[in-house]
Amino acid sequence: MQLLQDRIKKEGKVLPGNIIKVDGFLNHRVDTALLAACAEEFKRIFDTSKVTMVLTAEASGIPLATICAEKFGVPMIFAKKAKSDNIENGLFKSEVWSYTYKKKFTLIVSKEWLHESDNVLIIDDFMAKGNAVQGLIDIVQEAKCGLEGIGIAIEKGFQGGGDALRAKGLNYKALAVIDEVMEDGTLVFRKEDL
Amino acid sequence: MQLLQDRIKKEGKVLPGNIIKVDGFLNHRVDTALLAACAEEFKRIFDTSKVTMVLTAEASGIPLATICAEKFGVPMIFAKKAKSDNIENGLFKSEVWSYTYKKKFTLIVSKEWLHESDNVLIIDDFMAKGNAVQGLIDIVQEAKCGLEGIGIAIEKGFQGGGDALRAKGLNYKALAVIDEVMEDGTLVFRKEDL
Repeated sequence: MQLLQDRIKKEGKVLPGNIIKVDGFLNHRVDTALLAACAEEFKRIFDTSKVTMVLTAEASGIPLATICAEKFGVPMIFAKKAKSDNIENGLFKSEVWSYTYKKKFTLIVSKEWLHESDNVLIIDDFMAKGNAVQGLIDIVQEAKCGLEGIGIAIEKGFQGGGDALRAKGLNYKALAVIDEVMEDGTLVFRKEDL
Repeated sequence: MQLLQDRIKKEGKVLPGNIIKVDGFLNHRVDTALLAACAEEFKRIFDTSKVTMVLTAEASGIPLATICAEKFGVPMIFAKKAKSDNIENGLFKSEVWSYTYKKKFTLIVSKEWLHESDNVLIIDDFMAKGNAVQGLIDIVQEAKCGLEGIGIAIEKGFQGGGDALRAKGLNYKALAVIDEVMEDGTLVFRKEDL
């Protein structure tokens, strides 16, 4: 998606450890008009008429998932992050290792709100190694829902999470895939048909 | 707002300690159409043409704040919750005591994204004692922004946070104010002109 790639090139900052900082428009200050454009792009890519629920993980996935769900005319569920001890009953859950925070957490979704009859589109802002998204896929499988697809705004292609999902044959799409960060900080985007 | 009151009456559950659980439409599974209706109501109540930024706190305020900001045509910032130690520089911050979790946390907003020229509308899903919202007001004051108003979906009127802000003369509005939880679980709403 050209609009998103241009914005990443213009405002994204590369921090040590190849962290791509886009907190001016995606995950701290949120450009809601850009997110609405991303939602329209997902609507073109996925068959959203079949989607009954958008699923994401708190906190930074929520803005994009909310706007997508509103544009698709469906509700949105955000999986909550809990410490891995002391989880109540009545929950779908999946344990996730966070590379960012170097600790385990558990994604939880109340069984009350996700049903076998649901057909889910997973939406998240970022894909790196893909652990959080895999946690959401686990929850969809535990709930025995349909999985219509997985839509990501920015994929760090060089960290392998997106390619692992593509290799599994999942309907996975990212709007901007960064394949390489050059030594001078230039970002190299993957050419992809969406 | 009748639509919201009706939904709370129909689906809200009262848990021990007068906790009002509305996680089927507001803060876990999110009814994006209802939130869009709340955004339209805020647009009627506040002069959103003067608002340049919607501000909320992660995580449960984000869905409503995102939809409001998108409908008002402005960006949204969500203050992040950090542990109170080890906060970096370059941040507006406010320490908040959480009654729910019985611990202190710090709300942080990067100085890069909030400026004196901004005129802020604070949006949150819930108002009880009002500590989180007071933290957001502190950040607005620290940033020397304008504060156009404070819009809340559901206020627990009997916990005093909303009335404290009204007493200060702030442009504070809640779409549904629960004044009392009867012994049989019936909710008594405040009659208010919005």
